[in-house]
Amino acid sequence: MQDILDEIVATIGASDSRGQPANYIPQLACIDPNQFAITVAMADGRVYSAGHSNQLFSIQSISKVFTLTIALGKLGDSVWSKVGREPSGDPFNSIVQLEHEHGKPRNPFINAGAIAIADAILMGHQPKETLAEILQFVRFIADDDSVSIDDKVAQSELATGDRNASLAHFMASFGRLDNPVDCVLGTYFHHCSIAMTTEQLAKAGLFLVDDGRNPVTGARVVSPQRARRINSLMLMCGHYDGSGEFAFRVGLPGKSGVGGGILAIAPGKASIGVWSPGLDDVGNSKLGTEALEKLVEHTGWSIFG
Amino acid sequence: MQDILDEIVATIGASDSRGQPANYIPQLACIDPNQFAITVAMADGRVYSAGHSNQLFSIQSISKVFTLTIALGKLGDSVWSKVGREPSGDPFNSIVQLEHEHGKPRNPFINAGAIAIADAILMGHQPKETLAEILQFVRFIADDDSVSIDDKVAQSELATGDRNASLAHFMASFGRLDNPVDCVLGTYFHHCSIAMTTEQLAKAGLFLVDDGRNPVTGARVVSPQRARRINSLMLMCGHYDGSGEFAFRVGLPGKSGVGGGILAIAPGKASIGVWSPGLDDVGNSKLGTEALEKLVEHTGWSIFG
Amino acid sequence: MQDILDEIVATIGASDSRGQPANYIPQLACIDPNQFAITVAMADGRVYSAGHSNQLFSIQSISKVFTLTIALGKLGDSVWSKVGREPSGDPFNSIVQLEHEHGKPRNPFINAGAIAIADAILMGHQPKETLAEILQFVRFIADDDSVSIDDKVAQSELATGDRNASLAHFMASFGRLDNPVDCVLGTYFHHCSIAMTTEQLAKAGLFLVDDGRNPVTGARVVSPQRARRINSLMLMCGHYDGSGEFAFRVGLPGKSGVGGGILAIAPGKASIGVWSPGLDDVGNSKLGTEALEKLVEHTGWSIFG
Amino acid sequence: MQDILDEIVATIGASDSRGQPANYIPQLACIDPNQFAITVAMADGRVYSAGHSNQLFSIQSISKVFTLTIALGKLGDSVWSKVGREPSGDPFNSIVQLEHEHGKPRNPFINAGAIAIADAILMGHQPKETLAEILQFVRFIADDDSVSIDDKVAQSELATGDRNASLAHFMASFGRLDNPVDCVLGTYFHHCSIAMTTEQLAKAGLFLVDDGRNPVTGARVVSPQRARRINSLMLMCGHYDGSGEFAFRVGLPGKSGVGGGILAIAPGKASIGVWSPGLDDVGNSKLGTEALEKLVEHTGWSIFG
Repeated sequence: MQDILDEIVATIGASDSRGQPANYIPQLACIDPNQFAITVAMADGRVYSAGHSNQLFSIQSISKVFTLTIALGKLGDSVWSKVGREPSGDPFNSIVQLEHEHGKPRNPFINAGAIAIADAILMGHQPKETLAEILQFVRFIADDDSVSIDDKVAQSELATGDRNASLAHFMASFGRLDNPVDCVLGTYFHHCSIAMTTEQLAKAGLFLVDDGRNPVTGARVVSPQRARRINSLMLMCGHYDGSGEFAFRVGLPGKSGVGGGILAIAPGKASIGVWSPGLDDVGNSKLGTEALEKLVEHTGWSIFG
Repeated sequence: MQDILDEIVATIGASDSRGQPANYIPQLACIDPNQFAITVAMADGRVYSAGHSNQLFSIQSISKVFTLTIALGKLGDSVWSKVGREPSGDPFNSIVQLEHEHGKPRNPFINAGAIAIADAILMGHQPKETLAEILQFVRFIADDDSVSIDDKVAQSELATGDRNASLAHFMASFGRLDNPVDCVLGTYFHHCSIAMTTEQLAKAGLFLVDDGRNPVTGARVVSPQRARRINSLMLMCGHYDGSGEFAFRVGLPGKSGVGGGILAIAPGKASIGVWSPGLDDVGNSKLGTEALEKLVEHTGWSIFG
Repeated sequence: MQDILDEIVATIGASDSRGQPANYIPQLACIDPNQFAITVAMADGRVYSAGHSNQLFSIQSISKVFTLTIALGKLGDSVWSKVGREPSGDPFNSIVQLEHEHGKPRNPFINAGAIAIADAILMGHQPKETLAEILQFVRFIADDDSVSIDDKVAQSELATGDRNASLAHFMASFGRLDNPVDCVLGTYFHHCSIAMTTEQLAKAGLFLVDDGRNPVTGARVVSPQRARRINSLMLMCGHYDGSGEFAFRVGLPGKSGVGGGILAIAPGKASIGVWSPGLDDVGNSKLGTEALEKLVEHTGWSIFG
Repeated sequence: MQDILDEIVATIGASDSRGQPANYIPQLACIDPNQFAITVAMADGRVYSAGHSNQLFSIQSISKVFTLTIALGKLGDSVWSKVGREPSGDPFNSIVQLEHEHGKPRNPFINAGAIAIADAILMGHQPKETLAEILQFVRFIADDDSVSIDDKVAQSELATGDRNASLAHFMASFGRLDNPVDCVLGTYFHHCSIAMTTEQLAKAGLFLVDDGRNPVTGARVVSPQRARRINSLMLMCGHYDGSGEFAFRVGLPGKSGVGGGILAIAPGKASIGVWSPGLDDVGNSKLGTEALEKLVEHTGWSIFG
């Protein structure tokens, strides 16, 4: 496995078509696009890394997997009255679908859906408390108490987050938010600003590898059925309108973030964290996807046979 | 396995919420909604059936899996210049996406996409020849020379197929069809009218279970990579705007038809054909989906863990 | 008035930004774009022309004013169960609105709406009979028995009319057409292929100048209220998604055709026919619009004050 | 004229189908729907009223005519780089068009367009100053210094204005607003909360009757061309996706507000203010429209002949 990762790092390092880092969040736009890291956390506890795997990066939308998991824990299936579970066929920040469907987001992984999930887990509390709870959860599943929020990124997003503010107000206008728009957005922007290394990220995904239980710590996080369902949502909706492409090329449930990270799950086998800041046309890590494609070629981990 | 299927038939038989057969194709509207059949064709060659598994039904859109496979064989990756591979987020017969994307269908499994695939495999031949080729292919993969087209259904579709004619002319107006619209539609309507039993259908799917090779006959149909990719497309797009729901509940690549059939693939394990004519709101077999959900619960075949 | 028209012809003749003739109908694409004609038919019977005012051109969508008038005569207000009367905000051949509104066109002047009107006036007859009736009506209102259909243009449209065929089949799929799609399209393509001079066209519009009565022949064509309503529809919807622009710049009810003609009505004052083959971005005559803008500047005929 | 208005009041008073007052702004929802007023301000200075013509009501979107006029005065034609001038074919608060057209509103009378206009006239000033300027302008054109803003309504809108906040943030996300969203919204909500009587409103519209000059005070407000253009925009876009209907039935440039008011202009003849709180399906005053329809029938003021 270490050989595979080293080979991937070598190939990726030589690539001269790295994509562009997200430019609409100032703090992300200035990241060096030449960085790359990959970590494979196996179900048996072994962990392999290559590249800048100790470098913190902004996990952005990958955090939506964690907030969805928390929301399911708190609300159970009534989460699905707030968001759907179909791919949207639209870009991550589209508002067209919202208007056609009366303010209910298609799934929890597009921006509108994740904002609705942030609202769902706030439950009248202050953003600070809810963020503490989210952080605690991520630290628990990653088995690492050092995971933190990068406040500079959060401030950067708050200052430039008009599109997300538009989505939140739009849903509010349909009576779909239970908490004040500002609290919901504050919570959303901050959980998107969690910073992790690929190693932390890969470990945090382990509960989705082993039927809802972290195979290393033995901690039960969700039921086996819920773990499968979260994986199915990652596959169907985890890469916005590039989800079909990711399933076609990589063949693993995965969730991307505009910080350039991807969390991918090979059920029964491993959780993978990968990071390369340059994005493709639909906002997913360009080289991160290529790295995962190579990894699956070498390992045969595709869930499709 | 036989016990599981018998139990499923018993449970399904007792259901009083069976959905409605498709009503826009006259020959399908008059099917008895109380019929039900399921067949599991295992990778090791064993075949289990329950219910009306010798009853022929119209496979309709399930045939799109077969025509896509043929098109990939003939054109290779240039198929993807004709259709995309993303879920559409729209109903099966929507034309909105086509206008926004200049006549290129989102994927090969929505109607527009399958019409484009029919055009791709015609290659200037007469529909009759192409249909003979399609039938020959289906007989080959199902290892059953009796598979045929139900001409009454095809005529019924031709007579009422204004929506599909609209889609075809729309694509033609963007210069996206190489053959005359009438030939393309004739080919499309006829291959949708192939009649099969669940047993034939399950056997026809076996090549997608075992890396592109029929594990029983040993015949190589497609490469392992192509088999995985077809499976990924079935998962992402096989149930129209109910694809997310099917992945969430069943967790297997599958393709439905408005005749009430579903073909589902458990990679490495089995190919499943199921049939119940009543449809849910988005046009997929209601009890067929429930039966698959139960089957996966019992067998643990979900690809998501 | 003659001086004004002569000055317009001089100015327009010197323009080097003439737009492009419609290229999707082969017979129109080969028209010399340097031709220009304008005719003003006054309410008092005087007629002024300048430019190539004896040159026949294809009136195309201008014919929709005449077929709407016929449909209103035959069906009265029940026409409005078949088409709406709101501007569409979309291009002339858009199908998106049709899907969102169940196959009912927004207004009688977009292509889908005019196809629905062609269906409405067919009433089970053969296209030939209906076309004879349409021609007879146009000859009557223009007081000129020489008006004819250009069969070459009609054939040219039939051969390349996939977009319109798509619209017709789409409406048929919602049960909105009473006659066979082929008959409806044949009627539509042929009435769009009526050839007229600007002089004939201006005269044909006179009934809309004088409360529904041709002020020269004295023939009553429609009631005063109906004349006003047809004028309002021309203003609101007569130039597709350039209708607002035409109202803003010209300020007269008008209907354009992709052949480069425009019929404009100055209520109580005059009917104007203008022709220049080059089109602007949304498919309306570029120099024709400029000529009308100049005419209204000189005459103060704007209906807006 | 007084007889006509009295008859209208009598007929309207007897109507038992009055529509529903706007319910999304709490302060408007509690208005007595049985109130009705109409005022005709003639170009010669005579003023006729009937009904509750001294009752103040919230002019809401009618204020958009005034802010557009101010914006044209300040920015001239560069206003059209900020908003278009085509009917949108969508409801007043739709965001779909904005996404398809990169945040540029179709016209200045839909909500998004009026918000863009509010931004345009702020020019870095405080909302307070800009609102003072707007009020001063309305008082000037109405020749009445008592016109004021109803702060309760403005507060009510601010508290429930999520849809408009969504539109504003959406445009901001495309870089289309030059001032802070909060300032823009504050300005917008307050100018929509101007309270007027039908008499004040009718007088305020007089400059659009007489080529941009108030025929009573003699004050020049805009050029003749600009007055015509504002009238054309009112006709094309003044009643949202009911603009075609209003042109068809009434035949005058008009602008409605969800407070139940309508300002209509009969060029060269009169300015009309009408008010009835109950709205039709698309948000325009139901009985107000009927009253104008009757008035035009009696006076022959339609601009369409």
